[in-house]
Formats: sequence, C-alpha cells, structure tokens
Amino acid sequence: MPPAPEVPEVVIRRLPYYLRSLVHMANRGQQVVSSQELGEWLGVSPAQIRKDLSYFGEFGRQGLGYEVAYLRDQLCAILQSDKHWRLALVGAGALGHALIHYPDFAQWNYHIVAVFDNDPAKHGQRLREDLVVQPMEELEETIRREGIQMAIIAVPPVAAQEVADLLVAAGVRSLLNYAPISLVLPEGVYTEEIDPVARLQSMSYYLR
Amino acid sequence: MPPAPEVPEVVIRRLPYYLRSLVHMANRGQQVVSSQELGEWLGVSPAQIRKDLSYFGEFGRQGLGYEVAYLRDQLCAILQSDKHWRLALVGAGALGHALIHYPDFAQWNYHIVAVFDNDPAKHGQRLREDLVVQPMEELEETIRREGIQMAIIAVPPVAAQEVADLLVAAGVRSLLNYAPISLVLPEGVYTEEIDPVARLQSMSYYLR
Repeated sequence: MPPAPEVPEVVIRRLPYYLRSLVHMANRGQQVVSSQELGEWLGVSPAQIRKDLSYFGEFGRQGLGYEVAYLRDQLCAILQSDKHWRLALVGAGALGHALIHYPDFAQWNYHIVAVFDNDPAKHGQRLREDLVVQPMEELEETIRREGIQMAIIAVPPVAAQEVADLLVAAGVRSLLNYAPISLVLPEGVYTEEIDPVARLQSMSYYLR
Repeated sequence: MPPAPEVPEVVIRRLPYYLRSLVHMANRGQQVVSSQELGEWLGVSPAQIRKDLSYFGEFGRQGLGYEVAYLRDQLCAILQSDKHWRLALVGAGALGHALIHYPDFAQWNYHIVAVFDNDPAKHGQRLREDLVVQPMEELEETIRREGIQMAIIAVPPVAAQEVADLLVAAGVRSLLNYAPISLVLPEGVYTEEIDPVARLQSMSYYLR
C-alpha cells in the first residue's frame, strides 16, 4: 500500500491505537465494529475516526461499520507493522534490560537485534541468547552491515544527543528516545519520545 | 496558584515540555528566552507557546521574552510538580525494576513509596532500601493509609484493567499505564499511557 502523502502527523499517531483496539476485538471474536463503538473505546469521536481512516480509503460501509479483521490488517499494513523491523538499542542499563525483555516489540515485528553501551564492564555481556552488548565503537559498522533503520535510545539525557548523532550518521532514520531531552535532528529523521515524568506532570496538574 | 478551569488537555500535555526546556536553559545559565527560541527548541510555533502560557497569566513582556527561572518555577507550580507526590507501583517485573531505579521520578518529586505484585515469590523482596514488594492483598489498605493518589501500572495487559479497578477503588486518581490497553475508568480519574509499540508504529509508517 503506498503512503498517503498529506496525512497529518496527529492522524498517524492515532492509528496505532485504532489498530490495538481492533486486535483486541478480533482476538475476542468480534467481527464488525462501528466508529461509534471504536470511539467510545478510545475516547475519540466517531467523526474523528471516520475522517482519520478516510485518508487511506473506504474501509467501512454506511450503517454496517467496519470489518474488524480487515481493518486491522489494513492498518497494520499502513503502519508497516506487517514488516520485519530490526532495531538497535543504545544503553544496557536497567531500562535497556527491561526493553529487551518487553514481549510486545517482537510480537509487533520490532526486533532488537543489536545493543550498544559505553561501559566496558558490560561489553560481551549476553542479554539474550542471540544478543551481546557491543562497544559504541562497533555501532556504525554494525548498523550499516545490518541495514538497521530504527533505534531506541536508553542512555542518560546528557549522552542522548551524541548517541542520536552517531545513530543518524550510521543511517538510522527513526529514533525512539527514552532520554528526557528534545533531540535536534536533521530533516527526514523521525523521533518519538517516551517521557514518563511529563505524563505524571500533566496528571498532577489535575490533582487539586 | 489556582487551576485555570478552561485549559484544553492538549495544552496541559505541552506544559511539561516547556518546563523541561526551561530547566535545561536555566541549568546552563540562560536568563531570558523568547517564544521564538523556545518554539524552535521544541518544534512548536511561537504563537502556540504564547497562547498556551496566556491561559495562566502574563509571563513575558513584549519584545523582552520570558525570564527563564521565573517561568520555570511558575510552570512547576502550575503542574504541581513542586509538591511531594507519593506513588504506588503495581508490577515488580523487569519494567517495574527499571521504573524504581529511574532517577527522574524522584528528581521531579514523584516518589514510588509502595510496590505490589501478585507473584508470591516476589513478596518481601527488597527492591530499594525502603521498598519491599507487597502482596496485592495489602494494596487497598496501604494506599488508603499512605493517602496515595497516583499509581503506575506495570503489569501484563491481561491484568491491567483489574489492577486499575483495585487502585481506583482504593482512592487513586491518576494512573500511568504501561500496559498496552485502553483502560475504562470512572469520571474524575486521569490516565496517561506509555506504549512504545504505538510510537514505533507511527515512525515505521514513514519508513518507505
């Protein structure tokens, strides 16, 4: 499926949540879903869902709703989560360990196939049967050789920009950044960040 | 500072990122920042920043910009990140361990003070000098006794809704959910979720 060129980023950010809900519904045997039901599930208006999906084609039929398994497969293909992605991880600390053992990555075709750390004490450490911590000096060559396009940054904030620069120089185009800093990146490199403190702060705002 | 009643949620979600940048600027000795510079830093338009901040008062002066330390302190107070928050964590697996050792929580006044797990093999395990894994049976009483209002869910998705229900019944009002499911929660309970797969999916969309 070709990409739809003019889709707003915010729409692309919502699609994974539609997909996640559809997987859940399909797993429990549900065959059809209305935009109303999907919207209630996700706290999004049915009109929003219909508009978001309309960027990619006609998935539902007026009054009949969406076929769950079909829409799931279409969204999976649109997000390219039906392809096998090979990821590098930088940072083999507590967070890195948790990420390596996070079952959902592999389940959704995102496979951590290389891990790097700057701590010599960790080099050679076997984190999984097929995964050994490598020194930073091997990052560029490994990423080029393996054709890795996505990476996860799990290093302290003070090191994150430098790590991002190395990854981008080696050819990585998508960075999932767990360090609480805003990375400065060249055009054409995508980044998403995971900052749990920011999430806690937007909740504590309401606790008055 | 009283809450501003009509602030859109999306604004509240952006404030932590403004705050994070201001902290960074203050730490490197910067005294004044324009909405232009802050916007470039964060990839947000200057007009958006001015509008977002205007919900809470007049922080800048035309042509002079914002005083970094002052705006930092104001945002910290608005988000109530200047208060001491006590959090419960449910789930003492690899992710739970990483969260307990995540330095930024305590640095921002979010302190994990209780941890629960349903695995008897983990009960009594000391995760930090002052933190021992408790059985789920002690959750309600501990949360009530400690007056805990925020919690982190780090259990597998199949258990997350049940855990959320227990936490809410015990008095928790804010849930940071690491399980990749959309929780169904009563009015007045806030939730934010951390789903790294969703983030990877919105990036792999662009990798064509």
